[in-house]
Amino acid sequence: MTTAIISQKGKEASRIVSLATAEQRNAVIRGMSNRLAARKPEIVAANLADVAEAMMEGTPDYLIDRLGFGEEKIDARIRSLRKIEALPDPVGRSYASRNLPNGLDVMRVRVPLGVILMIYEARPHVTVNAGALCLKSANSAILRGGSEAKRCNELLGALWGESLAEVGLPSEAIQVVSGSHEEIRDLLQENGTIDLVIPRGGKNLIEAVNESSKIPVIKHYSGVCHVYVDRCADVEKAIEIALDSKCLMPEVCNAMETLLVCQDLSDEIPKFIDEFNRCGVEVRGCEKIRELAPDIKAAVEEDWSTEYLDNIVSIRAVADVEDAVNHINSYGSHHTDAIVTENTENADAFVQRVDSAVVLRNASTMFCDGESLGMGAEIGISTDKLHARGPMGAEELTSYKLVIGGDGHVMGDPKAFSKEASYH
Amino acid sequence: MTTAIISQKGKEASRIVSLATAEQRNAVIRGMSNRLAARKPEIVAANLADVAEAMMEGTPDYLIDRLGFGEEKIDARIRSLRKIEALPDPVGRSYASRNLPNGLDVMRVRVPLGVILMIYEARPHVTVNAGALCLKSANSAILRGGSEAKRCNELLGALWGESLAEVGLPSEAIQVVSGSHEEIRDLLQENGTIDLVIPRGGKNLIEAVNESSKIPVIKHYSGVCHVYVDRCADVEKAIEIALDSKCLMPEVCNAMETLLVCQDLSDEIPKFIDEFNRCGVEVRGCEKIRELAPDIKAAVEEDWSTEYLDNIVSIRAVADVEDAVNHINSYGSHHTDAIVTENTENADAFVQRVDSAVVLRNASTMFCDGESLGMGAEIGISTDKLHARGPMGAEELTSYKLVIGGDGHVMGDPKAFSKEASYH
Repeated sequence: MTTAIISQKGKEASRIVSLATAEQRNAVIRGMSNRLAARKPEIVAANLADVAEAMMEGTPDYLIDRLGFGEEKIDARIRSLRKIEALPDPVGRSYASRNLPNGLDVMRVRVPLGVILMIYEARPHVTVNAGALCLKSANSAILRGGSEAKRCNELLGALWGESLAEVGLPSEAIQVVSGSHEEIRDLLQENGTIDLVIPRGGKNLIEAVNESSKIPVIKHYSGVCHVYVDRCADVEKAIEIALDSKCLMPEVCNAMETLLVCQDLSDEIPKFIDEFNRCGVEVRGCEKIRELAPDIKAAVEEDWSTEYLDNIVSIRAVADVEDAVNHINSYGSHHTDAIVTENTENADAFVQRVDSAVVLRNASTMFCDGESLGMGAEIGISTDKLHARGPMGAEELTSYKLVIGGDGHVMGDPKAFSKEASYH
Repeated sequence: MTTAIISQKGKEASRIVSLATAEQRNAVIRGMSNRLAARKPEIVAANLADVAEAMMEGTPDYLIDRLGFGEEKIDARIRSLRKIEALPDPVGRSYASRNLPNGLDVMRVRVPLGVILMIYEARPHVTVNAGALCLKSANSAILRGGSEAKRCNELLGALWGESLAEVGLPSEAIQVVSGSHEEIRDLLQENGTIDLVIPRGGKNLIEAVNESSKIPVIKHYSGVCHVYVDRCADVEKAIEIALDSKCLMPEVCNAMETLLVCQDLSDEIPKFIDEFNRCGVEVRGCEKIRELAPDIKAAVEEDWSTEYLDNIVSIRAVADVEDAVNHINSYGSHHTDAIVTENTENADAFVQRVDSAVVLRNASTMFCDGESLGMGAEIGISTDKLHARGPMGAEELTSYKLVIGGDGHVMGDPKAFSKEASYH
């Protein structure tokens, strides 16, 4: 199919899906979860063929990790789909209803965005999550995964098609496309039919999409995330939060990269370093930290703005909350940052001043996650401020319309309109 | 100043303004309304000099109309500023609070966007409205009006500067810039410091900004707006609504351009045409309409998608609600559309299916207006679906952050982390 036909079919499907009932849309998601369960061996086989080819082509290990879609990962997706199916319908709901002094009723009604184009690398689970979240919110989806995952993605696309057809909805409501880079560039010009582009992947991919697209883009840049241990922190809690934020999944965007510690806690700082050493995390420190632990590597300026995505942490001693906030706002990526403190005033100052999508108090940065936050899954974590910020679920894939109800309301006096009184 | 300095100063000012109290921000708006009142003669003189020069350069009449900023228009701005001052603070408010099963508290908090760049033509009143709405929402503004309004805009910028300085806020919180097209192009690349661009003006301006900007854009395209008179309409109400929507302010984007009438009302259609004739509105009709009124001009295909912004209306007979909805979704611009009917089922079908920012039932399209809707003023009427749709006031210039509060919450078991168990 040419790109114009793909986007046109997506538009037509979005009109039909926008008029489908919540029960119909949920039935498709249920059908997909049943198919994932029933056809697991086939999916695993397709994925293994992708993985084998990627290995032969010398793909780096971390990409192979992301490409893998074995039984455990499939089971996790089945659980996610069941959660998404059970969520309340994100569209059709009215809110912010008001009655104006002139008698007009005004309300906002949640509506789908239309056609959502998602461009992503590796991870086949995005093909499941993105399809489900777009459909839950009554949008149609065009999903363009990485070529390294093509066999698995094509099969998942076929399963979406079967699940849609079973309910009588067009299979084009979720289109899995491959297509060359030139074709993607063409798709990014289809601003008449595609309503939103979400690129997920490396910085280069996101920048290339943002620069060449005429369609609005929501960007998911990297996370340079911090935990700040305040003077008034419970140190035991702080150590657990720092370890969880760093070690549970060092490869995800909301993993901590820099630990900031109030300099008054110098007696406690070696405990953090010991724990990181125990867990196999390489520690790099500022000068003050190295005075306390001379064995660790020196952090250089570049460290403070690096997303390691690995078992490495940089530690900096700061004077107070204000110093911590300034560091985070200067070096961080406005993604996810946490404070550990028992002092409400310090917590409030941090929460107010840190300019990030997600700000946590006495909790691990791991909780910046759509599934933990009750979204069933997330389509990504937006680092933009416009439209959606932080974890994006089905509700973040909606817009609204303003509905105004009157009883013959007019603003001027129609009897006063005449040839003579007319404006021009 | 170079563009990098303008945007950098805007960023610094936005940080200060984001920490100012609502009372401080309101005091600036109050200071500006007082200055508009006290220095009216000076403002009028600056505007007259702009108008005189524009006339000498042969600027078209409709642009001269928009450029005018006389006493009446200034008084209207003073009233708007007072309304904006009195509105509740749009930032700092928390909403959607939840307590998760694991004990975490989650809420969203409204925050400013940061730095907003507005690019617009003519109308000096935008310099007042945009400055006030950006400041009300704790953003900083960079305002680039048309060169034809330069004297008046520079003076209004100086008055904003005085009003800010009086309260101890940086005058760079509202920067009125002139600058060449090349400098604007440079500003549009400042995606590290500017958070949002709003272009207001002709289609060419908006498209040029959208294509060259790396910063997110909210577009304000033209309005091809409709009134549909249903089979079950109260014809008297319908005539008043049609006249008001067409004749009160034909030059604004939410004025009606096409009237759709149910074909079963053929006896009533001549009444609409007579009323339009009485008001000096040129009527163009489809074939069926011309069978009833052979004297009127024939509408051609192009008419159905034309924004006249003038005393011209095209009228089409349609079969029913569905036919009307299809016409509107195909030819309209997804801006503002109304139905006149006493039948609830037809009204609901129209409201649900018309894919427009604002949908009205038994009310004039003139009510798609920030001031009428209680926003004090509007920065524009967004035709985008992302972030803000329809009339944009102060609240539409905000984002949110997710604030998560715990008591030492971690996701994994920190004791289980070790060199051996580590992910990599």
